[in-house]
Amino acid sequence: MLSFFFPNFATTYIIVQLLLRLIMDDRLTSFINASDLGPLDVALAEAMEIKNDRYKYQHLGKNKTLLMIFFNNSLRTRLSTQKAAMNLGMNVIVLDVNAGAWKLETERGVIMDGDKSEHLLEAIPVMGCYCDIIGVRSFAGLTDREYDYAETVLHQFIKYSGRPVFAMETATVHPLQAFADLITIKERHAKPRVVLTWAPHCRALPQAVPNSFAQWMLADKDVDLVITHPEGYELDPQFVKGARVEYDQHKAFEGADFIYAKNWSNPGVTNPADYGKITCEDRSWTVDTEHMSWTNNGKFMHCLPVRRGLIVTDDVIEGPNSLVIPEAANREISCSVVLKRMLQGL
Amino acid sequence: MLSFFFPNFATTYIIVQLLLRLIMDDRLTSFINASDLGPLDVALAEAMEIKNDRYKYQHLGKNKTLLMIFFNNSLRTRLSTQKAAMNLGMNVIVLDVNAGAWKLETERGVIMDGDKSEHLLEAIPVMGCYCDIIGVRSFAGLTDREYDYAETVLHQFIKYSGRPVFAMETATVHPLQAFADLITIKERHAKPRVVLTWAPHCRALPQAVPNSFAQWMLADKDVDLVITHPEGYELDPQFVKGARVEYDQHKAFEGADFIYAKNWSNPGVTNPADYGKITCEDRSWTVDTEHMSWTNNGKFMHCLPVRRGLIVTDDVIEGPNSLVIPEAANREISCSVVLKRMLQGL
Amino acid sequence: MLSFFFPNFATTYIIVQLLLRLIMDDRLTSFINASDLGPLDVALAEAMEIKNDRYKYQHLGKNKTLLMIFFNNSLRTRLSTQKAAMNLGMNVIVLDVNAGAWKLETERGVIMDGDKSEHLLEAIPVMGCYCDIIGVRSFAGLTDREYDYAETVLHQFIKYSGRPVFAMETATVHPLQAFADLITIKERHAKPRVVLTWAPHCRALPQAVPNSFAQWMLADKDVDLVITHPEGYELDPQFVKGARVEYDQHKAFEGADFIYAKNWSNPGVTNPADYGKITCEDRSWTVDTEHMSWTNNGKFMHCLPVRRGLIVTDDVIEGPNSLVIPEAANREISCSVVLKRMLQGL
Repeated sequence: MLSFFFPNFATTYIIVQLLLRLIMDDRLTSFINASDLGPLDVALAEAMEIKNDRYKYQHLGKNKTLLMIFFNNSLRTRLSTQKAAMNLGMNVIVLDVNAGAWKLETERGVIMDGDKSEHLLEAIPVMGCYCDIIGVRSFAGLTDREYDYAETVLHQFIKYSGRPVFAMETATVHPLQAFADLITIKERHAKPRVVLTWAPHCRALPQAVPNSFAQWMLADKDVDLVITHPEGYELDPQFVKGARVEYDQHKAFEGADFIYAKNWSNPGVTNPADYGKITCEDRSWTVDTEHMSWTNNGKFMHCLPVRRGLIVTDDVIEGPNSLVIPEAANREISCSVVLKRMLQGL
Repeated sequence: MLSFFFPNFATTYIIVQLLLRLIMDDRLTSFINASDLGPLDVALAEAMEIKNDRYKYQHLGKNKTLLMIFFNNSLRTRLSTQKAAMNLGMNVIVLDVNAGAWKLETERGVIMDGDKSEHLLEAIPVMGCYCDIIGVRSFAGLTDREYDYAETVLHQFIKYSGRPVFAMETATVHPLQAFADLITIKERHAKPRVVLTWAPHCRALPQAVPNSFAQWMLADKDVDLVITHPEGYELDPQFVKGARVEYDQHKAFEGADFIYAKNWSNPGVTNPADYGKITCEDRSWTVDTEHMSWTNNGKFMHCLPVRRGLIVTDDVIEGPNSLVIPEAANREISCSVVLKRMLQGL
Repeated sequence: MLSFFFPNFATTYIIVQLLLRLIMDDRLTSFINASDLGPLDVALAEAMEIKNDRYKYQHLGKNKTLLMIFFNNSLRTRLSTQKAAMNLGMNVIVLDVNAGAWKLETERGVIMDGDKSEHLLEAIPVMGCYCDIIGVRSFAGLTDREYDYAETVLHQFIKYSGRPVFAMETATVHPLQAFADLITIKERHAKPRVVLTWAPHCRALPQAVPNSFAQWMLADKDVDLVITHPEGYELDPQFVKGARVEYDQHKAFEGADFIYAKNWSNPGVTNPADYGKITCEDRSWTVDTEHMSWTNNGKFMHCLPVRRGLIVTDDVIEGPNSLVIPEAANREISCSVVLKRMLQGL
């Protein structure tokens, strides 16, 4: 009982931060960017609170329904989001749009005599009728940069569903992942030196994960971020403005506490015609034990799924400095914070 | 508290109706036709009661399991039925028969050496073992009128599952939709003039929705129904007996309070060889603002999904008189009444 | 109340057995073989207890999540396992690996530049992060005997997930089915004579069901098992060691109380090159009324799904001695016992 009167520093910190939240407007109606959560140290304190007792806010979700809409497949996001929602006492409905339902028309003024039997402008408000919160998964097409970066599908859900909406990885962002990454890093290091490194891959991948990762790291004043990638792979300025870019991977790795590896296809920033293409296949970027030896006994991170032999070697990902599993486990925590905020704002 | 002693008319009405139900046998063991619910004003009163407090009967569903079986895909029905069941405290299992399970043999005396690895006569009783109530989705094939209108699959579930069974749109009926439509209309108008109008479409669609809509409107003595469609598209007499048919769409629309638009393929009533075919593609039947100007400031309704530009124009469906979204929202309510009745009868 | 002091035999038996369990270590961390459950009479007593009140242990599952992973499709197992978990108060997440997620790499040291975008060594621990218990469905490939009988996928889940794992039919075993079969038999007969008979089929099927059935019957000292099949279809010795094999189906059926019919492809025991092949198509093995007339008014059993006309005739499977439906219903019970044990061990 004495610990109630003489709490340790961490407890004090959490209590103060939670009190701070009471005097802020914390209605979370959409979750896309790092700024949506407000001060990150508060969000991190909530994450720790929930990690210590993940059923604490179970009353909030009673008779509330989460609708998870997948336009693309998923493993981690599907499981961790469902788990987080159930931790909070919510009901969950999973909808695979291409598998179990219709292809949706997204344009207006179209005579719909093709293969799309429903318009998003009807489908979305209807989906909003049967739930309280919506999660959307929708990958980039990687052919039309402007369309992808407009995040049309996500913004249509925000505009027309009448419900709080969060991104479960969309065309250009993956904030649940980035928040989980931040939790994973800050649990271990108060003022870390973090490297986001490009790595080769056999298929063209979206920029959602590196975009959000960079944005969230930059949003935390205590994180020292370096981004390294082949020339031409520059990320979109809206996510990396102010970040330090080092094209020499070796130099970038020196002194790093955390190596965050990820492939992304060409973002088309320097040359729009390259958007979504693979313009570098250089296997020297694959993170192996030699790469890790350049760091400050750095931890290895990756959002998963990962292609071994391309992104990272077996030795590194299975080694004692690999954080890929605890990082994935924190997906349940980051999502719990987001859902808790949204439930509190209903 | 005074309102308890001096309730308004609506409250009195509901109380009286609910008392009436206590002296009737209300065990609902199958839900296909309007007559299955007994007096519609009682069912409507229950709908209003549930709409005011959709978690009121949550105790009824404790440890009860709804099995939703989809032989065809679904959006509204899947979501609204799941939501209704969860409102009532039920567990829900969703089974996509073609996606996640087997193709089922439905004939007897067959040597099953083809692609069907299980007989409905085993599969159905087994499904009944693991649940308390069953919902079935099964579209018309539109090639064999007799087979479709026999509702073989639905009746096999009723006969062999040992559980209460309700149609989640089957070959010839969609009663959850029609009940939701009736709720939507009667919420707004006590003695409405309602028009069911055919509209063009690029693909052959079943008659389930117009069949049930006509049946439910005719079952309500206060609804004045007119049906309008091109000659040859006459609906099956079992659903429209006694209904007024007006082949001139303009005349039909005059004075209407509600326009219910829907495409259906040729029902094969006047010419059996036309069954399931598109025998009219006349785009002049598309409901646009001019059509709506013929009405008595009529509301526009459609069960969704709707093909814009074929059934209805963007202007009409997005206009202030469009009821498509509240109509869809009432699917949760109509289903809640049906499930509540079935749970009470277990 | 007197019955508390003068309980009948069955009640006494159950009480004694349950007391016995208190002094045994009953942590169930994997469920593959009959021996995993400890003494079968204890497990059977638990099954009866749960069958009498299937919600009795609902408190055990609160805030516990079952993850059901399907690498192959399923009807009975999917429904009965989900129902059992919900009876116990668990949350359930269903994951169709090929439908809703990724193909998984299972080898080490591979450069993953093919169609598999994730390694099982990441995917499995991650799945373990978001649940408390895992069920795995994974059929035999029937081309590589050594691979199938090594049960690689199942053992990788046991080794890497960090969670209790049970087989929901895997390459070589189907213990939930065999336990349900044993319950079904012992409910009706204390010392039964049981025949496992091969029957013809149009497609090559795994040996999982007959393997487990034989193993479980042999594990019960009160069951007198005879196995009958064409020469060359000998089951793997690890499952049938000590069993009596009678190649003459007629002789085998004489005096039988239970006929358990099942097709399996050639197990490759006598001739490894025959593994997974159909080396007999003899329709005289199909169980018809004449076959059943050889028995001691025997009951007919099959795990389902069953191909009528190949395995069994319509008459027999629909006759009064057919147990296929109560047998399937007991799948909920067998799974409840397994999940209860696993929950108690968490």
